[in-house]
Amino acid sequence: MNGTVLQATDVAGGTFSVALFGLIAEAVLLLLATGWVARAWKLPVALSAVVALVAAFGTLQARDVWLATHQIPISYQYVGWAVTMPLQVLTFFFFVATLATPPAALFWRLLVVSILMVVVRYMGEAGFTHAALSFLIGIVGWLYILGELFFGRLNEIVANSHDEPVQRGYFWMRLIVTIGWAIYPLCNFIAGFGGGVGGGSLAITYNLADFVNRIAFGLAVLATAMLKTDAAPRPQQSRF
Amino acid sequence: MNGTVLQATDVAGGTFSVALFGLIAEAVLLLLATGWVARAWKLPVALSAVVALVAAFGTLQARDVWLATHQIPISYQYVGWAVTMPLQVLTFFFFVATLATPPAALFWRLLVVSILMVVVRYMGEAGFTHAALSFLIGIVGWLYILGELFFGRLNEIVANSHDEPVQRGYFWMRLIVTIGWAIYPLCNFIAGFGGGVGGGSLAITYNLADFVNRIAFGLAVLATAMLKTDAAPRPQQSRF
Amino acid sequence: MNGTVLQATDVAGGTFSVALFGLIAEAVLLLLATGWVARAWKLPVALSAVVALVAAFGTLQARDVWLATHQIPISYQYVGWAVTMPLQVLTFFFFVATLATPPAALFWRLLVVSILMVVVRYMGEAGFTHAALSFLIGIVGWLYILGELFFGRLNEIVANSHDEPVQRGYFWMRLIVTIGWAIYPLCNFIAGFGGGVGGGSLAITYNLADFVNRIAFGLAVLATAMLKTDAAPRPQQSRF
Amino acid sequence: MNGTVLQATDVAGGTFSVALFGLIAEAVLLLLATGWVARAWKLPVALSAVVALVAAFGTLQARDVWLATHQIPISYQYVGWAVTMPLQVLTFFFFVATLATPPAALFWRLLVVSILMVVVRYMGEAGFTHAALSFLIGIVGWLYILGELFFGRLNEIVANSHDEPVQRGYFWMRLIVTIGWAIYPLCNFIAGFGGGVGGGSLAITYNLADFVNRIAFGLAVLATAMLKTDAAPRPQQSRF
Amino acid sequence: MNGTVLQATDVAGGTFSVALFGLIAEAVLLLLATGWVARAWKLPVALSAVVALVAAFGTLQARDVWLATHQIPISYQYVGWAVTMPLQVLTFFFFVATLATPPAALFWRLLVVSILMVVVRYMGEAGFTHAALSFLIGIVGWLYILGELFFGRLNEIVANSHDEPVQRGYFWMRLIVTIGWAIYPLCNFIAGFGGGVGGGSLAITYNLADFVNRIAFGLAVLATAMLKTDAAPRPQQSRF
Repeated sequence: MNGTVLQATDVAGGTFSVALFGLIAEAVLLLLATGWVARAWKLPVALSAVVALVAAFGTLQARDVWLATHQIPISYQYVGWAVTMPLQVLTFFFFVATLATPPAALFWRLLVVSILMVVVRYMGEAGFTHAALSFLIGIVGWLYILGELFFGRLNEIVANSHDEPVQRGYFWMRLIVTIGWAIYPLCNFIAGFGGGVGGGSLAITYNLADFVNRIAFGLAVLATAMLKTDAAPRPQQSRF
Repeated sequence: MNGTVLQATDVAGGTFSVALFGLIAEAVLLLLATGWVARAWKLPVALSAVVALVAAFGTLQARDVWLATHQIPISYQYVGWAVTMPLQVLTFFFFVATLATPPAALFWRLLVVSILMVVVRYMGEAGFTHAALSFLIGIVGWLYILGELFFGRLNEIVANSHDEPVQRGYFWMRLIVTIGWAIYPLCNFIAGFGGGVGGGSLAITYNLADFVNRIAFGLAVLATAMLKTDAAPRPQQSRF
Repeated sequence: MNGTVLQATDVAGGTFSVALFGLIAEAVLLLLATGWVARAWKLPVALSAVVALVAAFGTLQARDVWLATHQIPISYQYVGWAVTMPLQVLTFFFFVATLATPPAALFWRLLVVSILMVVVRYMGEAGFTHAALSFLIGIVGWLYILGELFFGRLNEIVANSHDEPVQRGYFWMRLIVTIGWAIYPLCNFIAGFGGGVGGGSLAITYNLADFVNRIAFGLAVLATAMLKTDAAPRPQQSRF
Repeated sequence: MNGTVLQATDVAGGTFSVALFGLIAEAVLLLLATGWVARAWKLPVALSAVVALVAAFGTLQARDVWLATHQIPISYQYVGWAVTMPLQVLTFFFFVATLATPPAALFWRLLVVSILMVVVRYMGEAGFTHAALSFLIGIVGWLYILGELFFGRLNEIVANSHDEPVQRGYFWMRLIVTIGWAIYPLCNFIAGFGGGVGGGSLAITYNLADFVNRIAFGLAVLATAMLKTDAAPRPQQSRF
Repeated sequence: MNGTVLQATDVAGGTFSVALFGLIAEAVLLLLATGWVARAWKLPVALSAVVALVAAFGTLQARDVWLATHQIPISYQYVGWAVTMPLQVLTFFFFVATLATPPAALFWRLLVVSILMVVVRYMGEAGFTHAALSFLIGIVGWLYILGELFFGRLNEIVANSHDEPVQRGYFWMRLIVTIGWAIYPLCNFIAGFGGGVGGGSLAITYNLADFVNRIAFGLAVLATAMLKTDAAPRPQQSRF
């Protein structure tokens, strides 16, 4: 709180709080769910839980800064993305790994590209490197990841699996990463590579995008994991 | 605390504290209970636990603002409702899903209507849209949800189940949502769509309503889950 | 801390800290123990854990106010009691329910009387209602609860059970509620229904009473639960 | 933090931080370990975990006071000891109880003497009672506990058990309580029964003593519990 | 936060935040994983989790000091290292102990040398002892640990095990300790044994080194533990 009160008409401040509470709710639900789902699904669900938890911490800090200054320096967004975006990309890897083990080289490629994508975009927005060039390199990184998800080995394993719940979960997760992640470069572009996101409408857009990208993503993983766990033959002893 | 002390005659401040402690107590009890109840009941109990937890965070913040200013901007109530009301509506869905899977379309309808209901009412109260119209649209959303609970597919599954503990739990949960949620629009109406809830008596009413709506609701879910878990045939190994 | 330091000769402040640490220690121990005890005993142990946890939060706040002002407004005590006293009364109900299910009407009577008892006493002490009359009504509520515990259905189930550990645990728990809870009205009476507990000696007495009432009570529940769990025939698989 | 920064040459402040981090590390490790060790060992390990947790809270507060004032009023030490010393003495009781149940009277004697020992020493140091006399009574209490550990029923059960890991663990725990607890009265004696521990060297000595007394003690319990758990015949199902 | 805001171009401050979020994410993931991995692997995974947790607390404090003063006194680094470095060295011991029990004397040698290494280097940097001599003694301690890892009993057990996942995990962990820990003395050397790390570039280097040393180390332990758990014959009941 720090002496600053959320006013009734501060919609941007309200979306920070709603995003915070939603992320806490999701993090707790996913953490609990790691205890219910079948063993193979514990790792993807745990990664989604960790994404929600880190995002909740980041949103908590951004909200405090917003309430105090009604401005969000871009570093708050990038600090969160630097941890959650690579984790979400790796969630795809371990999501598909419940069907068949993808090549380890793919793991490293996805990890490195997703980290670079965030770092390069930050460097550009903060003015350390050429803004437009960095923006484009960031886009290329994102397109590479989409390429792997749509046409690469991960998609191949899922398509060949004839496993309907996994295919549906994969479809939604990929859709979220495609549409939802497009909001960030769009906002970058519109904000004209400025040093700080001053307008409340930009903060609201970012919060809604983060909300969908992190919460819907995690719920898609959870729903798939629970459907698969229930579908597996249940041994007599596992009632708890 | 922040240097502000709860005075002996500040009844409104006291109800914030009692609601806070009650919600903490319930959240911990429900979180623990997800480890005891039968697998099918883990999700409804976990959702109720998450509702209590988020409500506890919201109450903590509202209490700090109350102690510092003796006023609660309406945004504090709406931030909490935006997360807990949809979660409670979904708890009905997964409560009934322990008997038979309801149609997925119903899940999406309940989710969208319950979110819209909160957003529209906030827009009206904060003065962004026409107050009376928004109030009425909010009421319509609430009536739609009640319609689903009383005459829709969920009620049908429960009524046909001949499962006495679930029927009793469903009866109580529905009653809470019917009577308890009526307090909010009533208070809205009485407060005349004002920008801030200044009077202590309004704060007390809201706190008592939240207390019943969230705590009694969660306990109804827990009681049903424990009765069902005990009724199930217990395999020899599950003593712990 | 808030800039205020516990001085070497501030005995009352010291008892707040000791009570706080003791309650944290008990809450963690009881929370862990819900994972060890037999299923039937999880609910009573969890309720005791929740009592200790809420009491710890309440003590933390009271301590901060004490260190800052060396006064404790009575609302701090009553906020804690409003949650922990009904929970402790219900712990009796679920403690006995491990032997045989008591009538549900008893549950509701105990819940309502224990809540009313706290509310009425607060109303009297805060000056909203007639002090002496409220004090007497509070005493009547307490005596009714003691009547149920000594001569009612709960005592009957325990007495007929021939279950030695449960009988011993029940004896101690009832003793704590009889002797320990007597300290509160005694202090009320001595303090002359004043608006704030100013004297350090009164604060010390309250802290010691709370310490015994909550910690000894929870340990009696835990000891009974562990003796009963160890006595049950242990299936081969339950080594962990 | 509170605006105060740990300077590079503030060795006493540094030992507070190291003790804090070490206690957090141990508390988490022991809390996790309660989930692995055999059932009989859960209680001693949980008691050690609770000791570490309470000590961590106490150290956190003492550190903040130290950084702000570079003085530690003795009450901070005594508040921690009032909870952790009786808990450590009881850990001996339940450690030995894994072999054979010691007499219940011994439990009560150890509990009462260990609490009195701390209270009397505090009364003396704070100037409420005669300093030298209280110091001597505190020493007598400590010697009584040592007598029980070296020549009493606990030692007898351990000596007759022919259980090598338990005997080794008991030896180390007793050694820690003998040597490590001697540091406190020694420091008392050297500090000349003063009202506040002002010197950094005294704070460093206390921190190192607490570090060994609590962390090494807990690790001795954990090591014994894990050796005993691994030695027990493992049923086929308990791989997790 | 404390009123200080992370500016968009404060790269050093940003790396503190990224390191903090990364360590929180890893700590939660490893804590969850102690519930999945086979029993023998719980201890190494738990030790890595504790390292991440303590490092997260340390980073949180260092970040607050950095945001407030844009300087990090060296004590913050050394406090963290004093706990995490010995824990990481012991992780090697218990990692190898899953194959065959190494001699207990090695445990004590590794523990003592790793503690001394940190203490001596701190004494030198803080100016209590001869800077260059302390630096050299610290290097000798580090080389001794590397000697044990490359040519000692631990390496021998791993090399003779023909256990491919453990050998690969050991290789990576040893590489991290060899290359990653070299950064600290290098930075010491370059900073010229100064009393405070003032330059942002030094803070960035330290943060990146800590990030790799702690996070990559923990993930190497986790990956090995999960591969070994999956490889073990799975009994029918262990689906959860």
